Amino acid sequence: MINVAILGYGTVGGGVADVLFENAATIGSRVGEELNVKYILDIREFPGDRFEAKITKDFNAILADPEIKVVCETMGGLKPAYDFTKALLEAGKSVCTSNKELVAAHGPELIQIAKDHNCMYLFEASVGGGIPIIRPLLDCLTAEEIDEITGILNGTTNYMLTRMDREGCDYDDVLKQAQEKGYAERNPEADVEGYDACRKIAILASLKYQKTVNYEQIYTEGISKITKEDFDYAGLLNRSIKLLGMCKEIGEKKYAMVAPFLLDEENPLYAVNGVFNGILVHGNMVDNVMFYGRGAGKLPTASAVVSDVVEAAKNQGVASSVIWSAEKLTLNSKDDLEFKYLVRMKGNPAASGFEKIFEDAKELDAEIIAGEYAFVTPVMKEGDFLEKYASLPDAIKFIRVK
Amino acid sequence: MINVAILGYGTVGGGVADVLFENAATIGSRVGEELNVKYILDIREFPGDRFEAKITKDFNAILADPEIKVVCETMGGLKPAYDFTKALLEAGKSVCTSNKELVAAHGPELIQIAKDHNCMYLFEASVGGGIPIIRPLLDCLTAEEIDEITGILNGTTNYMLTRMDREGCDYDDVLKQAQEKGYAERNPEADVEGYDACRKIAILASLKYQKTVNYEQIYTEGISKITKEDFDYAGLLNRSIKLLGMCKEIGEKKYAMVAPFLLDEENPLYAVNGVFNGILVHGNMVDNVMFYGRGAGKLPTASAVVSDVVEAAKNQGVASSVIWSAEKLTLNSKDDLEFKYLVRMKGNPAASGFEKIFEDAKELDAEIIAGEYAFVTPVMKEGDFLEKYASLPDAIKFIRVK
Repeated sequence: MINVAILGYGTVGGGVADVLFENAATIGSRVGEELNVKYILDIREFPGDRFEAKITKDFNAILADPEIKVVCETMGGLKPAYDFTKALLEAGKSVCTSNKELVAAHGPELIQIAKDHNCMYLFEASVGGGIPIIRPLLDCLTAEEIDEITGILNGTTNYMLTRMDREGCDYDDVLKQAQEKGYAERNPEADVEGYDACRKIAILASLKYQKTVNYEQIYTEGISKITKEDFDYAGLLNRSIKLLGMCKEIGEKKYAMVAPFLLDEENPLYAVNGVFNGILVHGNMVDNVMFYGRGAGKLPTASAVVSDVVEAAKNQGVASSVIWSAEKLTLNSKDDLEFKYLVRMKGNPAASGFEKIFEDAKELDAEIIAGEYAFVTPVMKEGDFLEKYASLPDAIKFIRVK
Repeated sequence: MINVAILGYGTVGGGVADVLFENAATIGSRVGEELNVKYILDIREFPGDRFEAKITKDFNAILADPEIKVVCETMGGLKPAYDFTKALLEAGKSVCTSNKELVAAHGPELIQIAKDHNCMYLFEASVGGGIPIIRPLLDCLTAEEIDEITGILNGTTNYMLTRMDREGCDYDDVLKQAQEKGYAERNPEADVEGYDACRKIAILASLKYQKTVNYEQIYTEGISKITKEDFDYAGLLNRSIKLLGMCKEIGEKKYAMVAPFLLDEENPLYAVNGVFNGILVHGNMVDNVMFYGRGAGKLPTASAVVSDVVEAAKNQGVASSVIWSAEKLTLNSKDDLEFKYLVRMKGNPAASGFEKIFEDAKELDAEIIAGEYAFVTPVMKEGDFLEKYASLPDAIKFIRVK
C-alpha cells in the first residue's frame, strides 16, 4: 500500500479523492499496489463528507509522516503552495500538481529540488486539464524536432467564442452566461485577458526549449475586445475566432504569444469547440499531431493529477527526468512573425486609399455594418503590418489570420 | 553509442533511417547517447543510396552482433518478420515495429518473449501511424477506466470518404484517384474492406482488455458499398460518413466492430478529414480525449518507430511492461449494441408502411433519388433492427448512425 496526501480539498482536490476512490482497483493494478489517501489538508471543515476522517489542518503531520510517498498539490496559488511543495520535495516525497501558476513561476527550481532528492515534481494537469499533453510531449514525440506548439488552452474563453460564433451572442451576454454556469469567475480577467493561456503556453514553451520562458515576456492579448461583428466578418471568410497560445521556432529564433486568431476549417483547432481544449504540435517528421479533450473541470483535471500519482508511485526513488533549466530564454519579438490580418475600417474604401498602403490587400465584398468596410492583408511581418496599420487614420481594429 | 539495425528498407524502413539521421542530435540528447544505424537488412541492392554501406542481406550477422541492442522491424507481413523478431527478442535485443499484421497475429507471444529476455517489443507505429496512441493509452490515461475507443484508423478510406463528401465524387472515381496518388494499393481490399482498421482496433482492444482480441472475430464492414447518394442522405442529416473501428465495454460485456457510420459535427471524429486519423478514447473520469495526426506515410510512421527506439535505448535490460495476455477474449455479439439506423427504401413511404415496423422512425423530408425514400430509426439494439430490417421487402441498404 502506498500512502498519498492531498493538499487542498477544493474542486480539483475533491476530484483527486474521487478518482482515487472510484477507480481504486484499476489504478492499484496499474501501480502494482493499492493507493491509500491518508490525509487531505484543508483549513475548512467538511462534516459528513465521505473522506471527513482524513481531513487535517496540520501540514507538518503530512511532511513528517514517512509513510507518505506522494502528495497531490491542488491548492492553487503561490502561497503557501510553493513552501509546502518545496518542503515535501526536500523530504523526498513526490509532488503532483494542477497548479499552473506555481509551475509557471517556480517550475525549474522545484524540478531541480526533486532531482536532488530522488523524487518527482509532476504537472500533467497544469496544461490542458485532462488531456495528456506534457507526457506525450516529453515521452512520445521523442523522435521529433518540434517547431511549433499552438493550443486552445482555455476552456472558458473557448466556450464564449463558440457561443458567439454559433449563436451570434454579444460578448457581455455570453460572459454573463459563462459566469452563471460556473465556467467563468466573477472576476474573469485571468481567462478573458489571456493570462491563463499565457501561463500554460509558458509551461509548454519551457518544456520545448528546456529553458525558462517567463510568462511576463509573452505578448498576451485576450478576447475582451472581440465583438459579434468580428464573427460576422469571420463568417464571410469561412473562419472562426479562437484564442490561441503559441510558441514557434524559426531557425534560431524563438517566439511565443497569446492572441485571438481567425482560423479556417483546415486547421484542426477549428473544430475544437465549447469548453474543450486542443493542442496542436508540429514536428519536422510527424507533421501535425493534435491532443484534444476537456481542458478543465473537476474529474478530467483530477484524472491528470492521478496519472502523475501513478507515475510517481511506480517510480519511487527515481528522480524527475524532465529537462527544464532555470536559465532564462529570451524570446524574439513577435514583430518578426508573419500573419495575414483582417482590418476593419470606418468610411468607404474608395476614399481611404487603403490599397496604396496595403498592396494586394483583399477587400471583403459585403457590408456587415453601415459605414464600415474591411480587408485582409497578404501574409506579412507583424512589425511591417503594425507600422502601416498605424498610418491608417480610419482603422477600427485588426485580428490576426492564421 | 547505441547500435541499431533496421530490417526492411522499404518506405517505413527508409523513413526510420532518415529520421535517425536528420534528427540525430535531438534524439541523441534524449537518449543520452548517440544512436548509430549499423545495419539495414534488405534483399535488394541500393547503389548510390546514402546508407548503401550499411545494407546487408545477412540477418544472422545482425542477430549475432552483440553491439546491436535495438532493431526496427519494418518489413511488414508475417514471414520472415515473425521468425526474425522472435530470434532477436530471444537474443535480448529490443524490437520496435510498425508491422500491425504481426502485432495483431502474434503480439502477446512476442511481448512475453521480450519479458522473458529483459527486452522490449514495442509497436507504437502499428496503430495511428505518427499519432502517439499506444503509449498515451498505457502510460498517460492511467487513472481511467476506459470504456470506449473509437477511431478513424485508416487514412486511405478516410481520404476517399472525405472527397466523396466534399466533392460528391463517385466511389470508383475516388478509388482510382487514391490509387494514382499512391494512397491506395492496386488491390485496395485491405483498406476498403476494413481489414486494416480491423487489425488496428484488434490491437487497441487487446491493450484495453489486456487479453487477446482475435481480429477474425471482429465484425468488419468496409466502405466499398458506400455511394455518393449515401452522402446526399448524410448531408440532409448534417452528417458525414466515416469508417470507424470501435471497441466498447458495457458492464461486463465487451464489443468490437468496424463499419461506416454517420457522424454529426458534435463528434470530434467528424472533423478528422483526408488522410488524417483520429482516435477517440472515452474514460469514466476524463470523458473524451482525442489523438489526431497522420495515420500513415513514411516519416510520420517512422517517427513513431523511432520514439520506440528511444524508449528501448533508454531502458536497456528493462523488460516490456505491457500487459497483453495470450488468453483469448470472447467478444459479445454486436447485436446487443445500440445505434440509430439510416434506411434507404425503394418505392414510396405511404405504400410501404415502414412506420408500422419501425415505430418513431423519422422519414427524411427530401427526395434524393426518384422512386426512393429514407428514414432514420430511433436508437435500438442492432439485433432487433436487423430482424425488422429483414422484414422490409423494399429495403435498399442501411448505415449506422452514431
